[in-house]
Amino acid sequence: MSAVKMAANCIFCRIIKGEIPSMKLYESDKTFAFLDINPLSHGHALVIPKYHGEKLTDIPDEHLAELLPIASRIAKAAGAENFNILQNNGRIAHQVVDHVHVHMIPKPNEQEGLGVGWPMKEGNKAELAKLQEELKAKM
Amino acid sequence: MSAVKMAANCIFCRIIKGEIPSMKLYESDKTFAFLDINPLSHGHALVIPKYHGEKLTDIPDEHLAELLPIASRIAKAAGAENFNILQNNGRIAHQVVDHVHVHMIPKPNEQEGLGVGWPMKEGNKAELAKLQEELKAKM
Repeated sequence: MSAVKMAANCIFCRIIKGEIPSMKLYESDKTFAFLDINPLSHGHALVIPKYHGEKLTDIPDEHLAELLPIASRIAKAAGAENFNILQNNGRIAHQVVDHVHVHMIPKPNEQEGLGVGWPMKEGNKAELAKLQEELKAKM
Repeated sequence: MSAVKMAANCIFCRIIKGEIPSMKLYESDKTFAFLDINPLSHGHALVIPKYHGEKLTDIPDEHLAELLPIASRIAKAAGAENFNILQNNGRIAHQVVDHVHVHMIPKPNEQEGLGVGWPMKEGNKAELAKLQEELKAKM
């Protein structure tokens, strides 16, 4: 069993600890899941690690490993055929609560669920090849 | 080591097998990661399981477990401070290739990276409580 890590003033840590009520769906030693109370669609849920960290890059791998399996279980339980998994890092990337959370957002129709904007660019092959080498060297 | 599962006509399975070239960043026995050649921003990468399945709910847990840890490593290597993790399921949810893929999309500014539309509704407490019980019973 791995250690949990909590922050005193974090609303999600307080939900995990039971200091603030939530619509809990699931809990393990490493993970907590609950319904979003301001859903984008019916079934919108959040899966969070019991390890406080603001961004994905702050969370140890062992605490990241369960997040998608639990999100998948919730999607199955909700009977979601079409859905988005989203995890935002930073205000500009639409993060509001500074404790890593994975959204499972059913997409039942065009109006409800996540809106996806996709400002795609044609990649520059030489630039991408340079970036590939840079990233490979750092991984 | 867990078994891989490939589909003959899937473009991502063919990338994993090396039949189609890619800008590979990382590979383990269960996971493959590469640069998106039509990036939304500098550093946009994809992490995929070496297990063919259309949607998150089609992939065994052991193949899901590595996806976020690898996405996190790429975000760190790219020096991404602000970024979105996105995994789409179904055409209406913006899925284009029918092999589960996790996007790591840096968000350097408002113009580049993922556009997030958030049609939030105030939740109906009674409806949410009913849904909570339904989902808990199915998990």
